[in-house]
Amino acid sequence: MQHAPHAHGLHRVISPAGVLPQPAQVIDNHMVCHANEMLIEVSALNVDAASFTQVKALVGADPQAIGAHMQGIVAARGKLHNPVTGSGGMLIGRVKQIGPTFPNDGGLKVGDRIATLVSLSLTPLKIHAIKAVHLAAHQLEIEGEAILFASGLYARLPDDIDERLALAVLDVAGAPMQTARLVRPGMRVVVMGGAGKAGLLSLYAAKRAAGAGGQVIGVSPFENECDEMRACDWIDTVLHADARDAVAVMQAVEQATDGEMADVVINCVNVPDTEMASILSVREGGTVCFFSMATSFTAAALGAEGVGKDATLLVGNGYARGHADFALGCLRESAGLRAIFQRRYAGGA
Amino acid sequence: MQHAPHAHGLHRVISPAGVLPQPAQVIDNHMVCHANEMLIEVSALNVDAASFTQVKALVGADPQAIGAHMQGIVAARGKLHNPVTGSGGMLIGRVKQIGPTFPNDGGLKVGDRIATLVSLSLTPLKIHAIKAVHLAAHQLEIEGEAILFASGLYARLPDDIDERLALAVLDVAGAPMQTARLVRPGMRVVVMGGAGKAGLLSLYAAKRAAGAGGQVIGVSPFENECDEMRACDWIDTVLHADARDAVAVMQAVEQATDGEMADVVINCVNVPDTEMASILSVREGGTVCFFSMATSFTAAALGAEGVGKDATLLVGNGYARGHADFALGCLRESAGLRAIFQRRYAGGA
Repeated sequence: MQHAPHAHGLHRVISPAGVLPQPAQVIDNHMVCHANEMLIEVSALNVDAASFTQVKALVGADPQAIGAHMQGIVAARGKLHNPVTGSGGMLIGRVKQIGPTFPNDGGLKVGDRIATLVSLSLTPLKIHAIKAVHLAAHQLEIEGEAILFASGLYARLPDDIDERLALAVLDVAGAPMQTARLVRPGMRVVVMGGAGKAGLLSLYAAKRAAGAGGQVIGVSPFENECDEMRACDWIDTVLHADARDAVAVMQAVEQATDGEMADVVINCVNVPDTEMASILSVREGGTVCFFSMATSFTAAALGAEGVGKDATLLVGNGYARGHADFALGCLRESAGLRAIFQRRYAGGA
Repeated sequence: MQHAPHAHGLHRVISPAGVLPQPAQVIDNHMVCHANEMLIEVSALNVDAASFTQVKALVGADPQAIGAHMQGIVAARGKLHNPVTGSGGMLIGRVKQIGPTFPNDGGLKVGDRIATLVSLSLTPLKIHAIKAVHLAAHQLEIEGEAILFASGLYARLPDDIDERLALAVLDVAGAPMQTARLVRPGMRVVVMGGAGKAGLLSLYAAKRAAGAGGQVIGVSPFENECDEMRACDWIDTVLHADARDAVAVMQAVEQATDGEMADVVINCVNVPDTEMASILSVREGGTVCFFSMATSFTAAALGAEGVGKDATLLVGNGYARGHADFALGCLRESAGLRAIFQRRYAGGA
């Protein structure tokens, strides 16, 4: 114990000294609940897409090997903080213990089911056993424990939505909320990686905000994903293109928008090198919001300068006030959206 | 030649195939002026601060070793694209040849002195000889040639401002322009790395926009830089703190603003790990704009989520319409600002 318990978890940082838990190399994952902490019995980890994809590329599409690699990261760092992608994910579990000074306005009780809304890249975690690895859902079912700091956000799990489905939605809840804030009626909106979970929710939020006079455009390099998007009544246009091919995407968006380009571009792609496609697809004066954890800061900043594009470039903030309720609300509102999520993340209807 | 000449320089990309010149590993720096290009005789390179600092840390504060390392990068990649930081810089020179289809609305002529406003990380460059390396100014005087693509931005150099001074200002012209767009009268603005050239210009632009009722706060870890800022009448408050120490900076800003925190934070620091200090210093609902090329995308995105801060996070776009005129205008307007730049970047008054 280096410090007294701190709201941002400074007391759990081992190395380097004096940094916050997220950038730390190693944090203390001793499962003792300090006065201002909450101890959670963990049942599932929802791994960030960029992290899961990187590990899968490294060790192969083998559930056991992926699980072992993730376990190795947690053993080394005290948290599921992928050293290559820098990203984490989130978790689901039951409240095991609540410290006496943990802020608990919501009346949370031991035994309640919750999901944490802060990244696993800063959450003290111990994995006792891995029970299953779900490749398509980027999920690990585990037996384990975790600590939530006093500043840590969480959501009590809803009764009316399947737990795995809720977890999948809450993990990316920032994207649809930020999209809703950026889009005005009549706007043209492009979502790169539109068929992923953040992408589909963002497309839905975009159409809700752009209205009938707007144009909502989903992009994917995979024909099966394009088919899935074509079946969604909230998506106006589907473009079959690879977001790493900046020039091809730019030309496709140009054609789809009669040369006007997008007012807003939301990037939810889980592979690197898609910054330029996003920048070239937005109009002069428009906004690009990067939610992909594979985004390179310099590629975005210098890319816009390199092509002389005066656009607003946003780092997609995973947290926005009310994002959990908004994202779950989208699912309650749209039977079509819920059916897709149910099929993908909760094993069918 | 892989392609016909393309406005974004696709025809110069060697590897990997099909990407734009900025993310490319290697580009063609054959100094032949294609139909839509401009050929420039280069006299000086203004290296991005993050790149210069990284090379200096690697080879030592030795002008010859730094010059040789930069020359090695250009020999390997065909451009001054630092493989570690991903960043470049900009150049100054004379127009040597203008291709017949190069867009030339401004009536540019062979022999005119210009500065390019696109990054060296995407500009075909050949260094014939290095004449001098200026450590404090991050500048290389060279004999060399470069190519500007049809989409490439440039500024004709002003007659009333020393060339080295103009170059230093134009290199970071995006920062003060974006600051001016973000700041409203009465706002509290924190500039991390406030004594650097982007920082000083941003502080000036912030005070201009915030007015007498606003509070403009400069941060630096160096006492001599703090003294320099204390002498500037457009800076209301100077904080002596290291932006890598997120908690210390947060507490200093809290004290300086009576707990209100900043409405806008501009990050112009040229070392890594300063994302959290910026995020913790802004108020809920405020805006952080990252101009540092050392910014980590994931540290910013996950950092805000990790502390539950609902703030707008911007990637500082190096280009904004009119940014060159705006930045040079700040220098013309303020004798104090101009004197500092003159002393630092143009060898005295």
